[in-house]
Amino acid sequence: MNGAESLARTLLRSGVDVCFTNPGTSEMHFVAALDRVEGMRCVLGLFEGVVTGAADGYARMAGRPAGTLLHLGPGLGNGLANLHNARKAQTPVVNIVGEHAVRHLAHDAPLTADIEGIARPVSAWVKTSTSAREVARDGAEAVAAARTAPGQVATLILPADTAWEEGTGAAEPVPVPPAPQVDDSRVRAAVDALRSGQPTVLLMTGRVLHEDGLALAGKVAASTGTRLMAQMANKRIARGAGRVTVERVPYPVDQALATFADVRHIVLVGAKPPVAFFAYPGKPSELWPKGCEVHSLAEAHEDCMHALEALVDALGASGARPAFQALERPSVPTDERLSVETVCATIGALMPENAVVTDEAISTGRGLHPYTLGAPPHDWLAICGGSIGIGLPLATGAAVACPDRKVLALQADGSAMYTIQALWTQAREGLDITTLLFSNRAYGSLKHELHNVGASNPGRKALDMLEIGRPDLDFVSIARGMGVAATRVTSTSELARAMRAGLASGGPNLVEVML
Amino acid sequence: MNGAESLARTLLRSGVDVCFTNPGTSEMHFVAALDRVEGMRCVLGLFEGVVTGAADGYARMAGRPAGTLLHLGPGLGNGLANLHNARKAQTPVVNIVGEHAVRHLAHDAPLTADIEGIARPVSAWVKTSTSAREVARDGAEAVAAARTAPGQVATLILPADTAWEEGTGAAEPVPVPPAPQVDDSRVRAAVDALRSGQPTVLLMTGRVLHEDGLALAGKVAASTGTRLMAQMANKRIARGAGRVTVERVPYPVDQALATFADVRHIVLVGAKPPVAFFAYPGKPSELWPKGCEVHSLAEAHEDCMHALEALVDALGASGARPAFQALERPSVPTDERLSVETVCATIGALMPENAVVTDEAISTGRGLHPYTLGAPPHDWLAICGGSIGIGLPLATGAAVACPDRKVLALQADGSAMYTIQALWTQAREGLDITTLLFSNRAYGSLKHELHNVGASNPGRKALDMLEIGRPDLDFVSIARGMGVAATRVTSTSELARAMRAGLASGGPNLVEVML
Repeated sequence: MNGAESLARTLLRSGVDVCFTNPGTSEMHFVAALDRVEGMRCVLGLFEGVVTGAADGYARMAGRPAGTLLHLGPGLGNGLANLHNARKAQTPVVNIVGEHAVRHLAHDAPLTADIEGIARPVSAWVKTSTSAREVARDGAEAVAAARTAPGQVATLILPADTAWEEGTGAAEPVPVPPAPQVDDSRVRAAVDALRSGQPTVLLMTGRVLHEDGLALAGKVAASTGTRLMAQMANKRIARGAGRVTVERVPYPVDQALATFADVRHIVLVGAKPPVAFFAYPGKPSELWPKGCEVHSLAEAHEDCMHALEALVDALGASGARPAFQALERPSVPTDERLSVETVCATIGALMPENAVVTDEAISTGRGLHPYTLGAPPHDWLAICGGSIGIGLPLATGAAVACPDRKVLALQADGSAMYTIQALWTQAREGLDITTLLFSNRAYGSLKHELHNVGASNPGRKALDMLEIGRPDLDFVSIARGMGVAATRVTSTSELARAMRAGLASGGPNLVEVML
Repeated sequence: MNGAESLARTLLRSGVDVCFTNPGTSEMHFVAALDRVEGMRCVLGLFEGVVTGAADGYARMAGRPAGTLLHLGPGLGNGLANLHNARKAQTPVVNIVGEHAVRHLAHDAPLTADIEGIARPVSAWVKTSTSAREVARDGAEAVAAARTAPGQVATLILPADTAWEEGTGAAEPVPVPPAPQVDDSRVRAAVDALRSGQPTVLLMTGRVLHEDGLALAGKVAASTGTRLMAQMANKRIARGAGRVTVERVPYPVDQALATFADVRHIVLVGAKPPVAFFAYPGKPSELWPKGCEVHSLAEAHEDCMHALEALVDALGASGARPAFQALERPSVPTDERLSVETVCATIGALMPENAVVTDEAISTGRGLHPYTLGAPPHDWLAICGGSIGIGLPLATGAAVACPDRKVLALQADGSAMYTIQALWTQAREGLDITTLLFSNRAYGSLKHELHNVGASNPGRKALDMLEIGRPDLDFVSIARGMGVAATRVTSTSELARAMRAGLASGGPNLVEVML
């Protein structure tokens, strides 16, 4: 059995049974091995940003990493932006990156590049295999590195000769180190803060935002009156009826500062101290006020669920009853004009039970929270690294992970264009994804930002860099060109009809919402 | 004048008057400055791979660098693959990459990344500006670095506060160091080799493949009988009637080995010793045989044109008459079936005078050489770094550089999908580009490669990674969705008609050629 097959079997034995791929010549032995390895599902992306973003979406929903198969340094480069997002989301990903045979590297052939150098800024673990006999063991270590709390990007570089020479067969899984538990002093400090009688916030991200973690947080809130908040962007939040609702840190700096203005203690669970997304002249980066103390109950790499359980125990709050969200949703508006408000209300009205929602709605989506918090239970996946172009791939990966759930992709137009190729993968795999594509013909958020930096009356040349009309993109045509059914809507009732039909179709479809 | 405007004016004064952009918030001061800087043309790309590939195409034709404007680490990451191609093509590119304000970096905000780390593998020069008062000078140095022979990628990272704080105004251009001249011993060694009476090859790339350089090489060939060859892929070759025709090193290893089998001396002018594109089990990386001597007349960073002139002088060949290519082109075939042969012949028959041809035809295009070498004079731009997804951006940049010439983009379908967003930029800018999109519904070259690695009877799972049908891409629909006129052809006469009409239209258009 050659190195490539040994590696593929190792990944499988370590629990990686989905691989998103965009291979090239140097990965052909791995591709050839796939025919011989039962149980490994391979999903082709026509661009590597689709591959890495889908791996992120998959792992967020499956709770275990997918593999990616990428073609040398440039292929990894194309996947880098969504690996950056995965790194910031703390999602486990196992990248397999092909490389020239070792003897070929000295010749600086066209595709030769510093792959480790490209990998390092987005990877917690990077290794180049040096022989076919080590490939399987390296693969098992890569999976363990990816699964190390809170979830990491691991990149294994596979020279072609280590793939084609004789390997060892599958290696045993490498044990994943358990997340460290926090000591009592951290729990006691959190208890003291939450019982101080001063305004407090419990600021969370990561695993504790699943339903069970939120229920624990709800007990803390019921027992102490603390506000529950999640970071500005989170890899996955359980939301909707029957869950404990949390606020999110607002994106606009002034709004975020106002949110924390009176807060005297922030207790972090997996989250970092809240900071502005961008810096602005004359505005602070830190969002908490002077005199507010920031306490870390548990850092992201620690056992946050255990820390939250310990906090509940220390507060004597095990019997407290969380404030569970009631089912209360808007009706489809009678106002036929499509606006951010009518669109958000329609989404709130029609979101299906147990949906997975991927949110790259950007300027259109900032107001969605109140319209959707009382919808039927669902999971909400956001962009954590700020690099747009994750939405369509994220939906793709989530749908591969959850074939029995409906995926609703809320997608801005400008962002969609970065990884529009994801639609094709959705079509090939027949994924149950309804994409609402919000067409405002602009990088809407940037127009606000241009104003924020003091250019309030921009000229044509500046505006041309922020508006994506002239010509207008026709997403219906683009989607159909990739095999995805699509329709354009210009009124609220059309949106409602298209959304219902799309969700009922069971396959990939796109609704272009003209704002 | 703030740092951003100081930088924009510096770039302009240093001869950079086109900037391909995909900005974000951290670049808003630069965008705002554009309104105030006359003479800087800005071209928006909807994805950064379009931006960097267009900068490459622009510089190949303009002979001077364009700027790029990219959004932090992930934006640079998205542009990385085509910067890899630019690095291998030795094209000058000046990247301006936004960064958080310096004080914001400590907070590890979502978009914070190791930008220098991402830049280094593709850049010969990387710098992060540390104050608004240094930005202009840094910009002038970046341009000089990019223009240093043979052409380099320079990346200047621009923290937002160095853009928004008070700057210095435009800086003076920094002198570009002249390319070193080769000493006489190298010329004498080349003369000895070429006069040895044994089979020789003059192997070239870079600037010497322009018309004047080829004329010099033609004198060398006329005087010594040496074979003239260019590298496998070259940034720009002057071809067609009235030029000196050169062979190119073949891509298939066995064919390349056969090409050099009897050669006893290879004289390099800007080129590297010929090596295989990929390594294969049991085949060598080096393409020259044992007993063949490789001589370097001039390396890429040296003054190759001067070296070639010196060689002509030393050979006493100034008066020699090169073998200029006659105008002789195929007719449009009467065979109506579209095949690689009929397509290549039709292209040869209809290529317009003074065209710029961008070649990412991959498996369809390998046979184009004989059909087009006697066409009217034209320039041929190829992919030098092996990273597919350069074709459409390259055509875009070349058309921006050469508004009075017709650009013919020869484009494989699989490769097109990596940077398909380039079509939108072609539409917005009204560029005179005719794209022939060769639709074979496969990564055609990879199917050969799978066979090459010994998997001659692949199963469904492996084939699914190499075939891009199911669903078939409809490039007519995709192109129209981005504002580009498009038509599908299924016969030779339809192809000829569409190609004539497209070239006559004067604007961007795409012909989907069903193979």
